[in-house]
Amino acid sequence: MKILITGIGGTIGSVIADALSNQHEVTGIDIRPLERDGTVVADLTDIDAISPLFQGVDAVIHLAAERRHTPDIGWDLLLPTNVIATANVYDAAHAAGVRRFVFASSMHVVGNYENDEPWASIAAGRYEGLDPATVPLVTADMPVRPDGRYAATKALGESLGRYYADCEGMEVVCVRLGTIADSDAIGDDPRGYVAWFSHADLAGFFSACAEAPGIKYEIVYGASANTWKIYDTASGWKALGFTPSDNAEDHRSKS
Amino acid sequence: MKILITGIGGTIGSVIADALSNQHEVTGIDIRPLERDGTVVADLTDIDAISPLFQGVDAVIHLAAERRHTPDIGWDLLLPTNVIATANVYDAAHAAGVRRFVFASSMHVVGNYENDEPWASIAAGRYEGLDPATVPLVTADMPVRPDGRYAATKALGESLGRYYADCEGMEVVCVRLGTIADSDAIGDDPRGYVAWFSHADLAGFFSACAEAPGIKYEIVYGASANTWKIYDTASGWKALGFTPSDNAEDHRSKS
Repeated sequence: MKILITGIGGTIGSVIADALSNQHEVTGIDIRPLERDGTVVADLTDIDAISPLFQGVDAVIHLAAERRHTPDIGWDLLLPTNVIATANVYDAAHAAGVRRFVFASSMHVVGNYENDEPWASIAAGRYEGLDPATVPLVTADMPVRPDGRYAATKALGESLGRYYADCEGMEVVCVRLGTIADSDAIGDDPRGYVAWFSHADLAGFFSACAEAPGIKYEIVYGASANTWKIYDTASGWKALGFTPSDNAEDHRSKS
Repeated sequence: MKILITGIGGTIGSVIADALSNQHEVTGIDIRPLERDGTVVADLTDIDAISPLFQGVDAVIHLAAERRHTPDIGWDLLLPTNVIATANVYDAAHAAGVRRFVFASSMHVVGNYENDEPWASIAAGRYEGLDPATVPLVTADMPVRPDGRYAATKALGESLGRYYADCEGMEVVCVRLGTIADSDAIGDDPRGYVAWFSHADLAGFFSACAEAPGIKYEIVYGASANTWKIYDTASGWKALGFTPSDNAEDHRSKS
């Protein structure tokens, strides 16, 4: 397959590109110059500049985004990158006949469920009285509850994907990503034991997103097989035929 | 109450403003000059220009939008009016401490359910073998299925409303509107017998959206009490304490 990755220079893009390059022809777009072969510097808000790059592509993995998601993040930052660029990447992919589209969404799209119990306790690392085997999970078909403007723009990207899947026959996978660190570490935030997505699982998961047969439209949660869950990761693994190998709990300090 | 209506010069805005003016102080913003008292000409993409107009307002009814929703409607038209303007109106309302926000969404947000049975038949006026009392309904908490880019922008407006309700305590009602004609007619499209929203019901419904107590966040379907339904209108009437009085079926030609 020929796979085009937007935002290929970021943490996620680098991990995925390295893994996919073993079996596929990987090209990339980034706003900054990179040393990676097949990478083009382009601004995704310029559809005329980027459209030729989608010719002959089998699968697009759209990662490029404004990553800051604090409540005060402004539309001046979100509009070009998370709205216009995403609209353009869908349009360019559709115009070029791209079959598979993988959209990097975020757990923040449903992040406000984490204000409710038992999820608030789990995110805060307060496990007393809770059994991880019986905790209810936030599924992919529950109403969105974006925790900010950033998250609302990710919900827009999911909505556009649903349109292209329903009306244009594009195969779309929206990945509501958890937490991925440059260092692959879980970090000090107890929420990391919910949301951690190891680099190894990340690479295998996105390969499955690009390769899995029988996809029409899927919203899947992107995290490792962590003991403490808030989101229904397992349904996505089943849809994608993917088996994760990491669990944040295995890396918890026992002190 | 002091109620601010954006897009007050449109069909819906005119009907609502006439009705609300009996009991409330109604002001309005429109992109075109109007003869209606209290109406200001302003461009909603200019947040500095519009922000002062939200001071002291109790409820905003945000109707202003690009209305064209054909599949080929471009982002050049949708971005300023349905994305930037909507983001600005939410921001300006929040900054001014507006309590109630009514967002004019659209049935198009879930419009692709109308490709599935039995809804496809109902929308096409093929009722054979169907009993309107037992038809399953598309509810407010089912996943969005936007039927185009226009609809995806309306889903964004709903997502933003959910954020402001969940995180900022704003009371938000998103109205997934059916069909409203200048003439109040149902028209020739058999889908009108599903989606028709009479001017009388429209006025009462939006009054309830502005006035109903106990609202946190609601997605409601905006249509009259039509016999042939696709959408769960009744849950919205209950949440708003509203009783519609019209039914498209009573106006069907018996020829």
